[in-house]
Amino acid sequence: MSKDAWNADPRSLLSVGVGFELAAVDPDSTPGFDGGKKRGEASLALTHQELNDLQERLFAESRMGGVRSVLLVIQAMDTAGKGGIVEHVVGGISPEGLAMHAFKKPTTEELEHDFLWRIRKELPGAGIVGVFDRSHYEDVLIARVHALAPPDEIERRYAQIVDFEGELADSGTTIVKVMLHISEEEQKARLADRLDRVDKQWKYNPGDLVERALWPRYQEAYQVALERTSMADAPWYVVPANHKWYARIAVQQLLLGALRGLAPTWPAVDYDVEAEKKRLAAS
Amino acid sequence: MSKDAWNADPRSLLSVGVGFELAAVDPDSTPGFDGGKKRGEASLALTHQELNDLQERLFAESRMGGVRSVLLVIQAMDTAGKGGIVEHVVGGISPEGLAMHAFKKPTTEELEHDFLWRIRKELPGAGIVGVFDRSHYEDVLIARVHALAPPDEIERRYAQIVDFEGELADSGTTIVKVMLHISEEEQKARLADRLDRVDKQWKYNPGDLVERALWPRYQEAYQVALERTSMADAPWYVVPANHKWYARIAVQQLLLGALRGLAPTWPAVDYDVEAEKKRLAAS
Repeated sequence: MSKDAWNADPRSLLSVGVGFELAAVDPDSTPGFDGGKKRGEASLALTHQELNDLQERLFAESRMGGVRSVLLVIQAMDTAGKGGIVEHVVGGISPEGLAMHAFKKPTTEELEHDFLWRIRKELPGAGIVGVFDRSHYEDVLIARVHALAPPDEIERRYAQIVDFEGELADSGTTIVKVMLHISEEEQKARLADRLDRVDKQWKYNPGDLVERALWPRYQEAYQVALERTSMADAPWYVVPANHKWYARIAVQQLLLGALRGLAPTWPAVDYDVEAEKKRLAAS
Repeated sequence: MSKDAWNADPRSLLSVGVGFELAAVDPDSTPGFDGGKKRGEASLALTHQELNDLQERLFAESRMGGVRSVLLVIQAMDTAGKGGIVEHVVGGISPEGLAMHAFKKPTTEELEHDFLWRIRKELPGAGIVGVFDRSHYEDVLIARVHALAPPDEIERRYAQIVDFEGELADSGTTIVKVMLHISEEEQKARLADRLDRVDKQWKYNPGDLVERALWPRYQEAYQVALERTSMADAPWYVVPANHKWYARIAVQQLLLGALRGLAPTWPAVDYDVEAEKKRLAAS
């Protein structure tokens, strides 16, 4: 039913391909969706069930030897709505089918290892939908903007990421990478809202304005990361996110597309069903 | 609103106290709730928001130094509905506020350590609701029934569990332990349903009937575990679970009661809100 309001597959509209320019994406746009907030919210609610069903099938397959999994990577500037995606999109999947991880500032132990070390530890197991709130991309985003590593090290990381994600894809993980794209003005409004509301003030940090002042440099770092690491087996999607309702349904459709692509089915079982029915009846 | 249909606090009706007898609990009963399935499902849907809001406040507190967390432990015989509780009750909380862990048969590495070793690694952090699908109680349930450890070792474990949970409570974790209680006949019907349905056959394992044959010994092991480890700071609740809808709303209310008891509030922030508003305006 929710399909009706989509006039095109968001995967083709939002994916990062050759010649992509982040600056040309309008954060206010709602590509592919015929309708506004109300229709968007209805689409969101209607799609939870299919998403959850597909994940359950993937999980069932894994119990019978399947190795496939899904990994959703979410990156964005502050206030772009990562938390809302997690709550309203990812939250539609049963917790037992999820492996959610929010990557924070690296610990001392993490910094003593390669930047992918802490990432590998949080990869989803077979049958599971993994979700990264921030990721190894921080190591080419904030790390580039703040020169946390030498330029040649940052350069090497793009290739290391491509290799890493290629291996992951080869081992059965379908990767969906999403950048939530808001405008500088929208961020200002959202930060003002956080400062105005006692139930949101805890989300604000004076350091947020330091990062905000570096907006153009972050956009440039995103542009480079997107064009260097968007591959056929690990594509980036840039999701206009000034309208939260749109960002949510778009990410939901991207995740749905990944799971539909896997087309998981209820697995054949390795026991004799009729014989077990008789054993059970006698129990 | 959902409160209306409850005529008593499930915490007082379902908790395990002195003289508790598992055999006296009717798995078909619906203590404290005026109404049937339809009203139960409405109650479930209506309560998600409050549960999620309380968890968010707890999380907000943790960002400002709070150390409190909640741990829900779920134990039950096969088919009693653990998965449904996780999906329909726990699933109402945002994934970022959850730390869900399903304990399986211990690995070789886990067996080389004390039985609480793997449990400690999965405890919820500050602000988080942890959920254990099975737990350290397996080490006094299946371990007792199948004599996986010597009797004196099993005996020691009850006291070790009480000490462990006491420490946990002292360090700020509110513990809610739930046993979903079904009847032997209800299990038979649910296993038959799994064998009948291609979308459920993967959940069935021929070994399930081996455990089923040990029903009385499991009930005895539960009785002992419940009476030896239900403490004021880590109470057990036995939830009649032949009616899935009742088990879900009962566990939801138990979790809600724990979070309400913590009464988390939006934390005071450690920056000057008015000064930040000015900085933001100038940004």
